[in-house]
Amino acid sequence: MQPGDRAGLHVLGLDGGGSHTQCLVLNGSGQEVGRGSGGPSNHQSVGVEAAQAALASALAEALASAGHPALAAACFGMAGLDRDEDYRILRRMADAVLPDPPAEIVHDTLIALVGGTAGRRSGVAIIAGTGSSVVAYAPDGRAARSGGWGHLLGDEGSGFDIGRRALNAATRARDGRGPQTALTERLPAAVGVPTLEALADRIYLDGWAAPQIAALAPAVLAAARAGDRVAGEILAVAADELALAAVATIRALGAQEQAFEVVLSGGIFQGSPEIIERVRQGIARQAPHADAHLPRREPVWGAAWLALQTITSPRA
Amino acid sequence: MQPGDRAGLHVLGLDGGGSHTQCLVLNGSGQEVGRGSGGPSNHQSVGVEAAQAALASALAEALASAGHPALAAACFGMAGLDRDEDYRILRRMADAVLPDPPAEIVHDTLIALVGGTAGRRSGVAIIAGTGSSVVAYAPDGRAARSGGWGHLLGDEGSGFDIGRRALNAATRARDGRGPQTALTERLPAAVGVPTLEALADRIYLDGWAAPQIAALAPAVLAAARAGDRVAGEILAVAADELALAAVATIRALGAQEQAFEVVLSGGIFQGSPEIIERVRQGIARQAPHADAHLPRREPVWGAAWLALQTITSPRA
Repeated sequence: MQPGDRAGLHVLGLDGGGSHTQCLVLNGSGQEVGRGSGGPSNHQSVGVEAAQAALASALAEALASAGHPALAAACFGMAGLDRDEDYRILRRMADAVLPDPPAEIVHDTLIALVGGTAGRRSGVAIIAGTGSSVVAYAPDGRAARSGGWGHLLGDEGSGFDIGRRALNAATRARDGRGPQTALTERLPAAVGVPTLEALADRIYLDGWAAPQIAALAPAVLAAARAGDRVAGEILAVAADELALAAVATIRALGAQEQAFEVVLSGGIFQGSPEIIERVRQGIARQAPHADAHLPRREPVWGAAWLALQTITSPRA
Repeated sequence: MQPGDRAGLHVLGLDGGGSHTQCLVLNGSGQEVGRGSGGPSNHQSVGVEAAQAALASALAEALASAGHPALAAACFGMAGLDRDEDYRILRRMADAVLPDPPAEIVHDTLIALVGGTAGRRSGVAIIAGTGSSVVAYAPDGRAARSGGWGHLLGDEGSGFDIGRRALNAATRARDGRGPQTALTERLPAAVGVPTLEALADRIYLDGWAAPQIAALAPAVLAAARAGDRVAGEILAVAADELALAAVATIRALGAQEQAFEVVLSGGIFQGSPEIIERVRQGIARQAPHADAHLPRREPVWGAAWLALQTITSPRA
């Protein structure tokens, strides 16, 4: 492949996640020419059949909107890629929806990093939404992970963690075991019920799962901004946990003295400059040349960019 | 009713809980003359139909073993008695299985206190099993509760809380975010899987509920006894939380300077003198005349004793 050859080529990137699937088609110059979306495609949570249907739907929409170009390369960044068995399942799913060209399958944290840095394959991605996890990639390809253990074993600094701590702080205040906090009123109000007891009933009788607990995080942020110290402390702990997880990966790669980017990805960072600033400071104390920022581009762009690299790199 | 009249009378006590139902028949002198048991009878967790069947089964077994005596009084101590609606449900269930005499329905913490103190209606009951809760009863009938908010909002110091903290400590150690601990090996070993990752898979893929997480507590105790500092700290925090909850109820009743008993009920205290001693010390700092001890008698005995009181007290 020579420079110039790729002007008429197209590549496809896909971001397959637990809440939705995004798909993007770029031309050889890196310009967007098509886009599609679908439902969740994490086979661990929705099952293989539904996940594959979501992939197919997002792919079809993106290819149609791009005018059905021939693809030179494709890359799928997938949630739920934890074990060898997951890779085999995802390989079969990807081949079923896109037999040719075969899609490269990578971890969703890598496309978050590549998208968030607008094209770098090394650095740190902190992902904090309903759950949380951190992955650091070294320029030589080594990787280090921290967190990502799910809500029963970990998820420190995630929306679930913030929501759970807030519920606990409210019950402690109610029982006289902890300091008073506006959370005793704000959490029920956020859900539209009159009391903390009614909220507890709702949570158990309706069988709330992690996303619903995580949805309480904005109420905690609002309470902190209104001056509630307990809520502020919960957010500070969350930020410190995310910074700690990032620092653990940076240390694991021996990168404390290096310059690199840290992408702050996921809903927890959206509209929360307080958390961003505290995470930044926590990382800076251990890795002073780190540059932590919100994502510059979407994860799905990262996937498409990785596909584009495979047709423009010397090995192609 | 005059003294002497009650020699030929019989009373029945029932302990209806989330894991089993116990039933006891005493004669008018307080001697056991019959006993029966059944499955779980917490309608919140197993549903009304199964709960009522468990009550009927335990009752029938106890009455048969006692030779089907006429009953002068009965008392049911029931888990799941949280709201007015629960009382209405339990009232219907109790009347269906024992129309005559109508059973008095009380909270299961009260029969734990009465049984644990071998006959007192005032004092503090700390219940720490899969979940945790504390109730204090004053001699004048006032009551104060702390905890009992379930595993998503509370349950501090419970088996679930200990198990969850231990899992979290193990993942933090594995990631390099926390101190090393033998829990990274002991927790998988306790479940019979080779690694912490395999344990995480088991927990999520099998959809573990609170009782399974709580069942990890003995492994934490074993690690602490073998000198693991992280495990020891988790148990110390649990004990401190239970003491804090007890002190909150004692304060709510203004009983800090009074002498009373504290019953340490539930699996967490069984075979764990370390936890008992630390809870005792935590309470003694705030309520120096409190006497904390393991239960002297079973909760079901407490229920039967309450029934006996209704036929021997002046108001009967």
